[in-house]
Amino acid sequence: MAIAPSPLALPLPALPPLPGVRLGAAVAGIRYTTGRTDLVMAEMDPGTTLAAVFTSSKCPGAPIDWCRDAMKGGKARAVVINAGNANVFTGKAGVETTKASAAAAAKLVGCPAKQVFLASTGVIGEVLPHARLTAALPKLHESLSPDGWEAAARGIMTTDTFPKGSTRTATIGGTEIRINGIAKGSGMIAPDMATMLCFIFTDAKIPADLLQPILSKGVATSFNCTTVDSDTSTSDTVMVFATGATKHPRVTAEDAPKMLKDFARALNEVLLDLALMVTRDGEGAQKLIRIDVTGAVNAKSAKRIGMAVANSPLVKTAIAGEDANWGRIVMAVGKAGEPADRDRLSIGVGGTWMAKDGAVIPGYDETPVVAHMKGREVDIAIDMGLGRGKATVWTCDLTHGYIDINGSYRS
Amino acid sequence: MAIAPSPLALPLPALPPLPGVRLGAAVAGIRYTTGRTDLVMAEMDPGTTLAAVFTSSKCPGAPIDWCRDAMKGGKARAVVINAGNANVFTGKAGVETTKASAAAAAKLVGCPAKQVFLASTGVIGEVLPHARLTAALPKLHESLSPDGWEAAARGIMTTDTFPKGSTRTATIGGTEIRINGIAKGSGMIAPDMATMLCFIFTDAKIPADLLQPILSKGVATSFNCTTVDSDTSTSDTVMVFATGATKHPRVTAEDAPKMLKDFARALNEVLLDLALMVTRDGEGAQKLIRIDVTGAVNAKSAKRIGMAVANSPLVKTAIAGEDANWGRIVMAVGKAGEPADRDRLSIGVGGTWMAKDGAVIPGYDETPVVAHMKGREVDIAIDMGLGRGKATVWTCDLTHGYIDINGSYRS
Repeated sequence: MAIAPSPLALPLPALPPLPGVRLGAAVAGIRYTTGRTDLVMAEMDPGTTLAAVFTSSKCPGAPIDWCRDAMKGGKARAVVINAGNANVFTGKAGVETTKASAAAAAKLVGCPAKQVFLASTGVIGEVLPHARLTAALPKLHESLSPDGWEAAARGIMTTDTFPKGSTRTATIGGTEIRINGIAKGSGMIAPDMATMLCFIFTDAKIPADLLQPILSKGVATSFNCTTVDSDTSTSDTVMVFATGATKHPRVTAEDAPKMLKDFARALNEVLLDLALMVTRDGEGAQKLIRIDVTGAVNAKSAKRIGMAVANSPLVKTAIAGEDANWGRIVMAVGKAGEPADRDRLSIGVGGTWMAKDGAVIPGYDETPVVAHMKGREVDIAIDMGLGRGKATVWTCDLTHGYIDINGSYRS
Repeated sequence: MAIAPSPLALPLPALPPLPGVRLGAAVAGIRYTTGRTDLVMAEMDPGTTLAAVFTSSKCPGAPIDWCRDAMKGGKARAVVINAGNANVFTGKAGVETTKASAAAAAKLVGCPAKQVFLASTGVIGEVLPHARLTAALPKLHESLSPDGWEAAARGIMTTDTFPKGSTRTATIGGTEIRINGIAKGSGMIAPDMATMLCFIFTDAKIPADLLQPILSKGVATSFNCTTVDSDTSTSDTVMVFATGATKHPRVTAEDAPKMLKDFARALNEVLLDLALMVTRDGEGAQKLIRIDVTGAVNAKSAKRIGMAVANSPLVKTAIAGEDANWGRIVMAVGKAGEPADRDRLSIGVGGTWMAKDGAVIPGYDETPVVAHMKGREVDIAIDMGLGRGKATVWTCDLTHGYIDINGSYRS
């Protein structure tokens, strides 16, 4: 099924070369018969550290198990990603595939297998034929280049309608470093630790134990604040690789908070860029929805309330119908299980407050609300009137396109 | 918008007169302009007791507040229900409407206002014009009859495509009594305490404090085990009225467990009948889905796993597409947050096990699975392989019909 690009698609920014990384894509023919690229590899310089977060699913894919184990070494030399088959719920065969894939890549790079990281995305429950993957690797490895970013961003797509990338610079101790990231994701998006596949590279030199907390914190307010369909994937992965190929003053544990402040700012921007691109490419999405919750008892409560609204099929279908049905927002707030007082709750759309103090605002001007609902980006404001907790979450609308795509995904 | 009856619709059974209850419906013109009935009243004999469960929403409607307060008296003489306007998030005006409605009905019946129970269903956030309701009440009260069951079942419908009713008999101390119930509901169905509106009547004489635990237990395995769209309503209400109009041996607290065993059996059957009718009438539903979870660590965990599958848009759209996509079932089990071991999990559809021990069953026969998926009722079996906890939950598929209905509900 050919799918038109999402009307919310953004152009892929130019991702410049990043010292210490060479990457590319190849056609392995694992599942797709259209000749599209489906295998991506990146090779990083010796000394590359990493941080990662994975799905909280209790039924994770075999590559997740592999990466969790390999991470213990704290070093990375390569990452191999295939699209079309998620290698999830594939039993011993799935474990064998991860071993064979890592071994084949390690031989090409000249590193221990446990410095090769793996990710797979696509159909669940079908054995991933690793012979096709390992057969395609040598030629792919030969072709790796510092300019392979767009090829890599395209090679990891499944139901995605546009490739996703983001780049920023930051300074560490006065030296400029760069962060490049690519991601894929469109359906099965309700990240609990991370979402789908996202790979970020930087030429900074940051020890793994200092990189991990920055990533975890950044993911909490980006990927973990987005949802397309409330369905948490078995393959969610966000990885950051730091090649250290650009020389800058050494970062130590005690001066990390200050030295890495700008790095963390830039990384958070890349994470949010990519998370919102995934949401913009939500299956069937016609509108990007931002939900700002304020006045909750605390930030955790605010986020839960926001996600209850973001995951409500009734709210999402109303927005698809360009109907500012704030009654359904009230319903979703009410079902969140968080502290709420109907008579202190306020609801606004597109900057216009429509309801407060437990009732509609008499005679509020519907004109700007109606105009706002017709746009591609819909902003919802929810003030709980209880405390200072706040959160922002993002989702997309629920349309016929979602049903079309998911009623026939395997056929 | 005229909506064809659900393909899963069941005919309304004949609901015979029930001693102590007279009921009927009228056209109050509260919201609908089609001349359809939208106001229902039932009057019960003096001495009627009641039990009820309501939504756990933190933003409940004004009628819920009214009923929770009125219940403290333990006595009921009438119930008044309107369709088209839920009287939710209507502030002081909503409270005034409940007071005026109850007072008007109480005057006609000749009872205290707090023995009149109220329920409203329909749009949220619009003031319910109680003058239309109270103006229609006197003529409606005059018309009440022991044969008004079908009229009542039809009068409480909103987006429902068929009226819902169930009847059973049971014996108490050797005397036969009857239970009649009616319900409405189609969207915003993910009951947390109860779902939408359900009214059950019996001629048995059962004190309120003995009736309540039986109802609460029955709701836990019927209404609270169903979902259409994961959206818990602000108006969920299940009420049981016991008129005591049929004489049977007196039920006391100590002999209640034994004497009311058959009554509880019959009540549970009525509750499940009505809950499944609501699920069959799920907005856009083409298939009724039953999910049996076994082998979970306990019953609560089993239910949560079942509901995670039942609420998964990806599972529901796959079933709409007649695709036995068990990989999505694995995904939904994994996101439930409950104890799970991928390598001990088994998944079956229509009596055929497709996956076990962490992988697909090699060479399993797909033919009966494909045939089963084409039917109107789809059975999913999930064995967790961990313990003895089990639960059964029900839902419906997610189709274009759901988007059609909810993208234009207010227009």
